[in-house]
Amino acid sequence: MTEKTYGIVGLGLMGGSFARAIRGNILTGPGCKGKILALDRDPEVLRDALGEGIIDRAFPPQDAPEMLRSCDVVFLCLYPARTVDFLKEHRGDFKAPSIVTDISGVKAALARELPGILSPDFDFILGHPMAGGEKEGWANASGKIFRGRNYILMPLPSNTPGDLSFFRGLVAALGFSRIVETDCAAHDSKIAFTSQLCHVIACALVDSAEDTGVTSFGGGSFEDLTRIAMINAPLWTELFFTNKAVLLERIGAFEKSLGALKAMLVKDERAGLLAWLSQVREKRIDMSRIEIHAANGEKKSP
Amino acid sequence: MTEKTYGIVGLGLMGGSFARAIRGNILTGPGCKGKILALDRDPEVLRDALGEGIIDRAFPPQDAPEMLRSCDVVFLCLYPARTVDFLKEHRGDFKAPSIVTDISGVKAALARELPGILSPDFDFILGHPMAGGEKEGWANASGKIFRGRNYILMPLPSNTPGDLSFFRGLVAALGFSRIVETDCAAHDSKIAFTSQLCHVIACALVDSAEDTGVTSFGGGSFEDLTRIAMINAPLWTELFFTNKAVLLERIGAFEKSLGALKAMLVKDERAGLLAWLSQVREKRIDMSRIEIHAANGEKKSP
Repeated sequence: MTEKTYGIVGLGLMGGSFARAIRGNILTGPGCKGKILALDRDPEVLRDALGEGIIDRAFPPQDAPEMLRSCDVVFLCLYPARTVDFLKEHRGDFKAPSIVTDISGVKAALARELPGILSPDFDFILGHPMAGGEKEGWANASGKIFRGRNYILMPLPSNTPGDLSFFRGLVAALGFSRIVETDCAAHDSKIAFTSQLCHVIACALVDSAEDTGVTSFGGGSFEDLTRIAMINAPLWTELFFTNKAVLLERIGAFEKSLGALKAMLVKDERAGLLAWLSQVREKRIDMSRIEIHAANGEKKSP
Repeated sequence: MTEKTYGIVGLGLMGGSFARAIRGNILTGPGCKGKILALDRDPEVLRDALGEGIIDRAFPPQDAPEMLRSCDVVFLCLYPARTVDFLKEHRGDFKAPSIVTDISGVKAALARELPGILSPDFDFILGHPMAGGEKEGWANASGKIFRGRNYILMPLPSNTPGDLSFFRGLVAALGFSRIVETDCAAHDSKIAFTSQLCHVIACALVDSAEDTGVTSFGGGSFEDLTRIAMINAPLWTELFFTNKAVLLERIGAFEKSLGALKAMLVKDERAGLLAWLSQVREKRIDMSRIEIHAANGEKKSP
């Protein structure tokens, strides 16, 4: 790990955080031969990253082939559609052999386009780091956002056991505490619930606020529920539409649950609401238990 | 403040936290003459609180008159309906003069019953500490839950300026960082949004989860949105029904916002969704600004 050349395509919040975490957790020793190369369309971001000593070399987009030819591990930190385009465009530019991975929050389009993307030159590992923050961009990048978080991997038949094992170790070294493995369809289905539906709800809640001064009356709940409504609108518009069918199903299920609660209120069903809330409480406590259990016992990193 | 006798009625999460915060922040010096008396129906809780040195004397419910006669400041830390009953039952038992305050999350019933509650003997100050936690009871009480939180006061014409001023100082000393003043109707209306609607949404979201293992795919959003779904079912059933009319309005407004977002998805209105999300982002950022500004500049404590 300490001798590899890492390439980061896109030095935004995620790419910048990967660069910082690699520099801070992996390429630490003084005699360490590993390097970080980075590509971004914003020259100022590249200058900053170089100046801070986070990256070793900077590349503008037109020099992508030159950079990719030198990288043993490439993190594509672009929006989902752009990730597909970049892979198609640069399919012949990656080093052979190398590992290439993405961070797309929805995998359907990638899964569909794989035949035109995969190549014997590089091992493409589909990944989704479950981390982020409401403040985007290089300026807010931090290796700390990965600590204790989940990393979802969707291994492909083309992935070699050696590359997968190396990548699991790399992800653990970057601070992620649990690696979950699944396939693209299951990923998109689960993510529609745990991530996209939550963003949809948070945004609808903020939209429905009568006035912005209402938080003077807050006790923490509103703040916790809506922090993610400080949303990166272009990214999430893309994510919502890319996973539209499953997301609409999840919104429908949520509306049904909300409707059930509302009906009990309207019909003055006190005993019914008490029982329903008690059940919800138990379900949420079970979810925490599973979370804790998984975090302690199910680490799949080597 | 350090010479008063404080009475806590109900040593649950809130009452217990008041007792701990008074002991930890106010009655600290060695020569301090102030005392804490507490009443609870659970003898074991009283024994614990005495043993830990948090309270000075413990009273079972039947000895309420004896305790109330000695207290300069009484915190009623009961569920809303029980608070009204207790005040009616013990109207003649409070020390004259003394300050009595409640923590009810909904004020409509209290406001309605005031004529049968108020007395020249004691100054009843309506309050709502915006703090809590998903783990209830004395065992989880902690003075720390008040730090940096909002305290809502609903001054009555009967409250003396001196008592209100003393109480604001007391609340600030307990760790609350902002005191907001309003009336009962406005309180119930705002709280229906910032607190009750949030609990309703969190519970509906947990209810709509397909399986409890879905959190292995979480990135923090689901956890943040649903922590409050580990709900105290009897308390919140009472709160929801006591504020039913306003809460139903808030649920309706939220459903409308959610419906607007859903319609844009269904109709493939990408530009519309992008604009809507951008607007939500700005609104939420404004809310944070107001929060921060209020926390820094609008403290009303003396």
